[in-house]
Amino acid sequence: MSQAVADIGLIGLAVMGQNLILNMNDHGFTVCAYNRTTSKVDLFLENEAKGTNVVGAHSIEELCSKLKRPRKVMLLVKAGSAVDNFIDQLLPFLEKGDIIIDGGNSHFPDSIRRTKELEAKGILFVGSGVSGGEEGARFGPSLMPGGNPAAWEHIKPIFQAIAAKAPDGASCCDWVGENGSGHYVKMVHNGIEYGDMQLICEVYQIMLEGLGMSHDEMATVFEEWNKGELDSFLIEITRDILKFKDTDGKPLVEKIRDTAGQKGTGKWTGIDSLDRGIPVTLIGEAVYARCLSSLKDERTRASKLLEGPKNAKFTGDKKVFIDQLGQALYASKIVSYAQGFMLMRQAALDFDWNLNYAGIALMWRGGCIIRSAFLGKIREAYDNNGKLENLLFDSFFQEATAKAQDAWRNVIAQAVILGIPTPALSTALNFYDGLRHEMLPANLLQAQRDYFGAHTYELLSAPGTHHHTNWTGRGGNVSASTYDA
Amino acid sequence: MSQAVADIGLIGLAVMGQNLILNMNDHGFTVCAYNRTTSKVDLFLENEAKGTNVVGAHSIEELCSKLKRPRKVMLLVKAGSAVDNFIDQLLPFLEKGDIIIDGGNSHFPDSIRRTKELEAKGILFVGSGVSGGEEGARFGPSLMPGGNPAAWEHIKPIFQAIAAKAPDGASCCDWVGENGSGHYVKMVHNGIEYGDMQLICEVYQIMLEGLGMSHDEMATVFEEWNKGELDSFLIEITRDILKFKDTDGKPLVEKIRDTAGQKGTGKWTGIDSLDRGIPVTLIGEAVYARCLSSLKDERTRASKLLEGPKNAKFTGDKKVFIDQLGQALYASKIVSYAQGFMLMRQAALDFDWNLNYAGIALMWRGGCIIRSAFLGKIREAYDNNGKLENLLFDSFFQEATAKAQDAWRNVIAQAVILGIPTPALSTALNFYDGLRHEMLPANLLQAQRDYFGAHTYELLSAPGTHHHTNWTGRGGNVSASTYDA
Repeated sequence: MSQAVADIGLIGLAVMGQNLILNMNDHGFTVCAYNRTTSKVDLFLENEAKGTNVVGAHSIEELCSKLKRPRKVMLLVKAGSAVDNFIDQLLPFLEKGDIIIDGGNSHFPDSIRRTKELEAKGILFVGSGVSGGEEGARFGPSLMPGGNPAAWEHIKPIFQAIAAKAPDGASCCDWVGENGSGHYVKMVHNGIEYGDMQLICEVYQIMLEGLGMSHDEMATVFEEWNKGELDSFLIEITRDILKFKDTDGKPLVEKIRDTAGQKGTGKWTGIDSLDRGIPVTLIGEAVYARCLSSLKDERTRASKLLEGPKNAKFTGDKKVFIDQLGQALYASKIVSYAQGFMLMRQAALDFDWNLNYAGIALMWRGGCIIRSAFLGKIREAYDNNGKLENLLFDSFFQEATAKAQDAWRNVIAQAVILGIPTPALSTALNFYDGLRHEMLPANLLQAQRDYFGAHTYELLSAPGTHHHTNWTGRGGNVSASTYDA
Repeated sequence: MSQAVADIGLIGLAVMGQNLILNMNDHGFTVCAYNRTTSKVDLFLENEAKGTNVVGAHSIEELCSKLKRPRKVMLLVKAGSAVDNFIDQLLPFLEKGDIIIDGGNSHFPDSIRRTKELEAKGILFVGSGVSGGEEGARFGPSLMPGGNPAAWEHIKPIFQAIAAKAPDGASCCDWVGENGSGHYVKMVHNGIEYGDMQLICEVYQIMLEGLGMSHDEMATVFEEWNKGELDSFLIEITRDILKFKDTDGKPLVEKIRDTAGQKGTGKWTGIDSLDRGIPVTLIGEAVYARCLSSLKDERTRASKLLEGPKNAKFTGDKKVFIDQLGQALYASKIVSYAQGFMLMRQAALDFDWNLNYAGIALMWRGGCIIRSAFLGKIREAYDNNGKLENLLFDSFFQEATAKAQDAWRNVIAQAVILGIPTPALSTALNFYDGLRHEMLPANLLQAQRDYFGAHTYELLSAPGTHHHTNWTGRGGNVSASTYDA
């Protein structure tokens, strides 16, 4: 058997795995690399990992024999059964106290289950969100580890070293919490990422179709926005994308097919929010927008059948409107993050997790796709008040939305008149307006339910007591609030 | 043992069960009533069922012994384990070819499972949607039976007799399709019901808050609307509710607490639509609106912290605007039904069901909560073209939305400026505008995904081929479209 030389083993040599290995190597850790198709191990050692301290393994047994104890093995494989298969393959070669880390996009219920199953076998399981894509993995990802707390002290030196650093130098990695919380927080991160991307797309379409701007003009706007409160990775790459020319000198982005997939974590966030009863409307609309984008053929036929507004043209001041667009984007983004934190708050209640919201904002502050200056403000909000009820109630965000609201309203009203879809911008404003309404029209809805189904209602003056009215003067005297056999 | 005198047995004497029994009795069928708490059987026979042909049973064995063969037993009990428990209790007293009908709000995957499990035992299972509430059950519900097709000929006489009748006399009950399709169609019905109710609530809030109308004035508008294209049960009962005065002479609806529950079939429809990748945005927003309504305490605090528009007042022509409100409601409703039928189309593909869309529109035409003149038009659309790709492509609905769109846009723009939330009206217009766009901005989204995750994109000129661009000039040459270990 080989000598135990490696600090950590990594299984799965696709882009994320390769880059994480090189990142760990940069920080002085010896990594043992393994892949199911073992020829990939050799190719990796001969190419990307040439001249590094990375060692390879051609079997799970060899991999485990090369690891210092407690053994740490990180999986970067496809979420689902592949993770369970590799765990099963690893178990015969691990001992009590060894650590398995799943760095894939696993669904959090699986991580809850795996933490429990492995704990019974004396193995410490960690489900870690990893964000930042190719670049992040290579030069500093955002890492969101949760699971068996006993694992943290052993992986902390590696994880905090390789993670991105916030502008103040803090590592964008901290312990998230129990069992599935790491993957849960990563799921919400991805949902928010869906939302941020959709918001940028809507602003892009308004500029393109509503204002008739060229891609270079738009790139300049994004360049400017990236210097202010919108400063973020997604704004930055949008600038790059808008500027990028194809070989014929035309913007490449214009030639890309407008259909986006959505079978992943954004969808999970939407479903989870419905299940938990939290109105995470912006992510919901962002997922639906991807669904609609994928119906390209149906849309093409619809474009020939369904009428849009006639002679609608933007007639305002373009420069002023572009500034308003930025404000609408910013305010909508605040709402989206407020909704995401509402969802995490509810999940923490449901699963009895003790989530550190300031820490989560810090983990997202650098390295990941949604990294932004803005997340520093969220961190401050939760640092100031760890029990903050709603992000929108923090004075900074309260003032920011108050300041932006006129612009926000004008942008949406204009888009509505011009016939440009803004599902995410619109739902954000509708949520904002709904939240600040002490009275919503659900009183009528409760009356309707009581009318047709004897579901009963509460009175404003006496919450908790249930009343039924015979609205028609007909009907029986039994309640349908439950079927009772 | 007793004599087999009854045409059908019914388990569960809450309001729906009692009323269905009396309805069956009215149509000449002899029903045997059973309830777990058997004192309810006696109370029912001595009161509501006094003077009818209804017979009672005090045990499952007695119930089954009183049924003519093939035995037909209908369950009106709480969805979930209660259904399975009663099925288990029934099985020892049933024979091959006997029929169990679940008329509760069961989730369709349970009905798929039960059809299969009972088929293996020679029992024919039917999962039937039942809608119409108290009144509907008593005088003619909408019935949506699906399951084992061999059951249909035996239950058809009873079901078609007791169901509501469309204005042309057709029974609002037909065979929906295989295994879980009856409960699936009922689920979508309930989702649409959520949407219809939310749309009416938004219009109510605009009238109340935006136009400052009294409840009597609003009732008059709903009375008028109920004579035209909006003619429907929900518009009718809204009129009644708005007119209804408490003992002090004030509108009762104003005193009702504005918090609505949402743990049911609307949520299932939203989750199912996300899972199936179909943008059923209006139902999604309607469910989220109920979630937000339930956060009453948080909203009350928010109302003191979050700013709304300053000095925003409606200044247009009130009469014209009320007419536009009706058009916005109508167009949004068209979109919601189009989305619901898109979802059923996808489910039919996924489960290999042969759904009769015209038949579904007919089943909803009368008896149920969403019954309306409008559903007659949907029936016509699918009668004209059974393979209609999208309800919005039917010439009637195409013209209706084209005609309404200016009004629709103005209503939403006004609400946005006035700060009145319209999540459902807005998402409907956004969907309409998205669907009629041959190009959506998802090209930018795909470029972003390729930039940070090497997810690749397709070209408009070459769908199906996948390209990756090194947008930064840095980065590796591996694709992250899947983790491949």
